[in-house]
Amino acid sequence: MAAGSGLQLDRDGRLVHLLTLEGLPAATIRSILDTAEPFASIGEREVKKVPLLRGKAVFNLFFENSTRTRTTFEIAAKRLSADVINLNIGASSTSKGETLLDTIDNLVAMNADMFVVRHAQSGAAHLIASHLAAAGHSHVHVINAGDGRHGHPTQGLLDLYTIRHYKRDFGALAVAVVGDVLHSRVARSLIHGLTTLGVPDVRVIGPKTLVPARVESLGVSVHHDMDRGLDGCDVVVMLRLQNERMKGALLPSSGEFFKHYGLTADKLARAKPDAIVMHPGPMNRGVEIESSVADGLQSVILKQVTFGIAVRMAVMTMVAAA
Amino acid sequence: MAAGSGLQLDRDGRLVHLLTLEGLPAATIRSILDTAEPFASIGEREVKKVPLLRGKAVFNLFFENSTRTRTTFEIAAKRLSADVINLNIGASSTSKGETLLDTIDNLVAMNADMFVVRHAQSGAAHLIASHLAAAGHSHVHVINAGDGRHGHPTQGLLDLYTIRHYKRDFGALAVAVVGDVLHSRVARSLIHGLTTLGVPDVRVIGPKTLVPARVESLGVSVHHDMDRGLDGCDVVVMLRLQNERMKGALLPSSGEFFKHYGLTADKLARAKPDAIVMHPGPMNRGVEIESSVADGLQSVILKQVTFGIAVRMAVMTMVAAA
Amino acid sequence: MAAGSGLQLDRDGRLVHLLTLEGLPAATIRSILDTAEPFASIGEREVKKVPLLRGKAVFNLFFENSTRTRTTFEIAAKRLSADVINLNIGASSTSKGETLLDTIDNLVAMNADMFVVRHAQSGAAHLIASHLAAAGHSHVHVINAGDGRHGHPTQGLLDLYTIRHYKRDFGALAVAVVGDVLHSRVARSLIHGLTTLGVPDVRVIGPKTLVPARVESLGVSVHHDMDRGLDGCDVVVMLRLQNERMKGALLPSSGEFFKHYGLTADKLARAKPDAIVMHPGPMNRGVEIESSVADGLQSVILKQVTFGIAVRMAVMTMVAAA
Repeated sequence: MAAGSGLQLDRDGRLVHLLTLEGLPAATIRSILDTAEPFASIGEREVKKVPLLRGKAVFNLFFENSTRTRTTFEIAAKRLSADVINLNIGASSTSKGETLLDTIDNLVAMNADMFVVRHAQSGAAHLIASHLAAAGHSHVHVINAGDGRHGHPTQGLLDLYTIRHYKRDFGALAVAVVGDVLHSRVARSLIHGLTTLGVPDVRVIGPKTLVPARVESLGVSVHHDMDRGLDGCDVVVMLRLQNERMKGALLPSSGEFFKHYGLTADKLARAKPDAIVMHPGPMNRGVEIESSVADGLQSVILKQVTFGIAVRMAVMTMVAAA
Repeated sequence: MAAGSGLQLDRDGRLVHLLTLEGLPAATIRSILDTAEPFASIGEREVKKVPLLRGKAVFNLFFENSTRTRTTFEIAAKRLSADVINLNIGASSTSKGETLLDTIDNLVAMNADMFVVRHAQSGAAHLIASHLAAAGHSHVHVINAGDGRHGHPTQGLLDLYTIRHYKRDFGALAVAVVGDVLHSRVARSLIHGLTTLGVPDVRVIGPKTLVPARVESLGVSVHHDMDRGLDGCDVVVMLRLQNERMKGALLPSSGEFFKHYGLTADKLARAKPDAIVMHPGPMNRGVEIESSVADGLQSVILKQVTFGIAVRMAVMTMVAAA
Repeated sequence: MAAGSGLQLDRDGRLVHLLTLEGLPAATIRSILDTAEPFASIGEREVKKVPLLRGKAVFNLFFENSTRTRTTFEIAAKRLSADVINLNIGASSTSKGETLLDTIDNLVAMNADMFVVRHAQSGAAHLIASHLAAAGHSHVHVINAGDGRHGHPTQGLLDLYTIRHYKRDFGALAVAVVGDVLHSRVARSLIHGLTTLGVPDVRVIGPKTLVPARVESLGVSVHHDMDRGLDGCDVVVMLRLQNERMKGALLPSSGEFFKHYGLTADKLARAKPDAIVMHPGPMNRGVEIESSVADGLQSVILKQVTFGIAVRMAVMTMVAAA
């Protein structure tokens, strides 16, 4: 059984934490996407607020710096009228020798309602959720905002939301995930979601050094030639080249990478004419993707960002109601 | 007369600033603890907010980094519906050559209502309060969130709240304060509070190098043998070993410290069977305290954190009403 | 035509962005000052909040650190009931290789309503406004909170507000701007505002090395002798000595500077008896200004800070309504 899946749902099948898309039932994923629908239009209102989390304390626990992800959760929580407290933990309590779980216990004692957790180590959010369960704090919820190489489930969900928004039916899609799959928690989360929702054709495209061994076991096909990999697909998901995450020299150069795996108009022409282009951001223009494609008609990259707020509002609302 | 006491109360005896527990009348301390009572249950409500400080601007002025303390004040202020502005001053105005009091004058000119001040130098909060008084800004309030070795009055108050919660009557208690008393502003504040409230038996336990000279003048007894010091006491307050505050080598090693002054189940057995165990946090497990004791049935360490929010809400509400 | 002026107003002459005072019509400046009047008294109310920007998302984008300026905008936005998100961009996305405009596109996709932008490079706010216009995001507004040496229009406006508050009529004033004019964006913004509002006598006073070449073309007179420059003036605006902005040794020493250009009671006696003394802060006491003058009866330095909140509230309200 997948790590985390046992903790995420309560006995009645309600979402208590969001830790991973691995093992999360298709019905739950669909329910999150459905819940996000009405939130997607709140951003266009004059008053972009609903009182669903009023008086709740949401803690952004970022053990790893990520202004971008933190901001999306902060906006989502504020639109739900929650009180948001940002904690960059790297420099504080842990440096005073307090353990992660002591920090959590303290924040629970301050009547925290929800933790949004970003951590460099895989399994950190899961560890916190296990600890809360063991301590009987079933009213406190954990949302994984990225843990090491393991997963980034809200990113996976917003990708799924975007694909559904443009393609409606998952049942006949070909989706290509391109680039540094090895270091990408985004890719892992997305692939789990796609296969769970029944996408029949998921393709991983990248150089041998950046495709994980045995990735086929996740139900995907592997391509090292990009043209062949993109052939006839409906969705192209470009991944960020995780320069800062790579140790040693797995790649000759970013120019060399772009030549083989950067998405250009020419390469994109191999996909279906109505294929959409996605990227989790931040983009390295000219490395993973040509600027004209990033800003082109098939790009839905900025819509992903908009939908990301709605999806995070949906997840927060659902766990708070559990 | 104790520093600060003259500034803390107005002519009618109302609390205007909270600078130190030294010299604060027993009636005022009791009034703070009484005011905190109803706030202690707000944290358990669905909507954890009351509108007592709505539209007030509370500035967290942290000249010294302390995420933990800042967070407790931020939560307290947000639960009171105040607008909270966090300023980490270390890196900003002061580096541009502005003096502390110029910074204060500027924030007052921005219509600040309250300053929560953390500073490495003893007397900083007192200096600010004196300056405000001299400038006629009697509507602006100062709460000391820790100043050098001097004091940490809200921590002292939450300790008193916790003791009262579990032991009801201060008049017959034996309280032991254990460890690095020399560097602990927590210890100073607590001892003042305990003696003011009439605790007849306050004991300080620690190695000679970590017990201040002439501490007996505060009305406490000194013990260097922990077993004897804990004998029959009702409350055991363990202090954090202030590693980062120590200059030079006053201690042989943390292992050596634990052997003599770390709280183990064996040592705790010398206290009364219903003795409570307290610690201001963050804990160094295995240095000041054994994990099984920290997490044991007699430990009220996490309740201290919960009560700390309520006490801070009480202090903020009282000074704002003065 | 002045850079930025074409973008600031829409076809109906309403303020859409505030980028520079250069080229901003006198009627618009007067309208901002008039709008600020009622906000100046909100700070004295019990509940310092109005719901004008409720549910709006204001992003403080500080690519350059400035706690002081950020705080004034944060307070202004919170008093208008906006949701404020602070982003210190230096350390985040840009370090991940994202461009400034990609960051902006992402935040717009998160349904940002307003950007308050501080940047070390001149023209940054203007670049963002141009980009938003090109992308058709006419509902998103930009306020320049300081860009390189170019301008700091809200500071200029609060200076104008202060002068009008004390002197009522701009039409007969002599205003002296003293010190490091070369590096001061404050000076540039103020001089544009003063000449636009018809101040007949604007004087720039400073050593040759700190007065820009051809500054006379802005409609000011230049003085290197301070006594003569201050003679009979109504308003003395002292500038901060931008130590951190100077490259190389343009000045002999701060002591030498004070001797010639520091504002002392003696030098101030050359101005009119009811002349007011201003400074944008933070002050270097004993460098630009003697403490007794900074704190003296003619000083309106702290009133500038108070009015600054009101002016920022006015600008935010006006652009949000456009």
